[in-house]
Amino acid sequence: MAIELYDLAGAEEDRRFSPFCWRSKLALAHKGLAYRTIPWRFTEKDAIAFSGQGRVPVLVDDGRTVFDSWTIASYLEDTYPDRPSLFGGPGGRAMARFVANWSDTVVHAGIARLIIADVHDHLYAKDQAYFRKSREERFGASLASVQADRDRRVVDFRQSLAPLRLTLQAQPFLGGTAPNYADYVAFGGFQWARCISPFQVLAADDPVAAWRGRLLAAFDGLAGKAKGYAV
Amino acid sequence: MAIELYDLAGAEEDRRFSPFCWRSKLALAHKGLAYRTIPWRFTEKDAIAFSGQGRVPVLVDDGRTVFDSWTIASYLEDTYPDRPSLFGGPGGRAMARFVANWSDTVVHAGIARLIIADVHDHLYAKDQAYFRKSREERFGASLASVQADRDRRVVDFRQSLAPLRLTLQAQPFLGGTAPNYADYVAFGGFQWARCISPFQVLAADDPVAAWRGRLLAAFDGLAGKAKGYAV
Repeated sequence: MAIELYDLAGAEEDRRFSPFCWRSKLALAHKGLAYRTIPWRFTEKDAIAFSGQGRVPVLVDDGRTVFDSWTIASYLEDTYPDRPSLFGGPGGRAMARFVANWSDTVVHAGIARLIIADVHDHLYAKDQAYFRKSREERFGASLASVQADRDRRVVDFRQSLAPLRLTLQAQPFLGGTAPNYADYVAFGGFQWARCISPFQVLAADDPVAAWRGRLLAAFDGLAGKAKGYAV
Repeated sequence: MAIELYDLAGAEEDRRFSPFCWRSKLALAHKGLAYRTIPWRFTEKDAIAFSGQGRVPVLVDDGRTVFDSWTIASYLEDTYPDRPSLFGGPGGRAMARFVANWSDTVVHAGIARLIIADVHDHLYAKDQAYFRKSREERFGASLASVQADRDRRVVDFRQSLAPLRLTLQAQPFLGGTAPNYADYVAFGGFQWARCISPFQVLAADDPVAAWRGRLLAAFDGLAGKAKGYAV
């Protein structure tokens, strides 16, 4: 049976915007593993209760259930060692954690403040109240005010990407000459933005945008063909 | 002949504070290679003119001259492949570039604004005018004003270390269960601060401080025994 992945969806079933689910989908593609996605919404906790927790991605592989994008990547690397490596060795596996923590705290946190109201507007109706309440509590402000003034604030966000930009000026991917899990981790946030918002988080001439374009094209356009906005 | 490393020194010949030179010294120790350091000051451009440029570290190994800390690490990994790996495979080598760029733009840039006047005060007299002029031009402000109000500003610096802190809450080193070049890269900035300033850039209960302590103790206390301030 093909691997199944529970994948966050918006109001339209084919709008798949979760940055963490994108990490897992690209990891599966990197391993050349067939999989099918099961659309899931924030409030459908019952559908993934079998995993023992309430967030996606959740992967089911031949009866084994794995959740959390980092755990899924480690599971795939260990379970399918003869397929292309996600980490390029033990050093890469260890350092990819750092890339993930940087992506979570700099890329995701920065992008959230640029597109959070747009995320809300693309959600399935039954998810919108949950999303607004939980996120407004987290930010201590209305979604509209969190996202306000983004044309000015995006300058600081782009500046915060300096470590990524400098690396991509020296090599085409974080993984070196070809992409690996470090790239999928960092790319997930930009794909989140592209899927859910018309706002341009990157300047067109940014080396980070060129790298994003290479990842949108990877695996026969897996990420680039997904429903989203033009970048 | 033992490897030679030109190593930045302060007014006291044994105050060796360059974060980039520390990257190279720890890389040499990791490889188990014998080396001797040659103290060098900013204005002694003639002494390293043979390298074709004017900054340290410069490494001389059996007649071969290598400069730039990244190039030195790559040289050591390629030249001594049978000794412990600095990167833990090709993925780690690629991702270590990202760690280096993060360290340069977040750790070094942040620490510079906390200790830059202290650096000046520890320099050899003939270096001080050069250092003040070049750094004040870079910052567009006096060294004293760049460093001012550091007790308040250090809070933001510590917050900027979140990606490092989160990683060290999951594993003891950036390199995983044992340190590798990613650790030496990120550690260099903290060692720079320790060697040159009494200012405490980290809170004592920070997991980053515990990691710094493990690296100060590594290789029989190579970094911890070096002249500096208590942390």
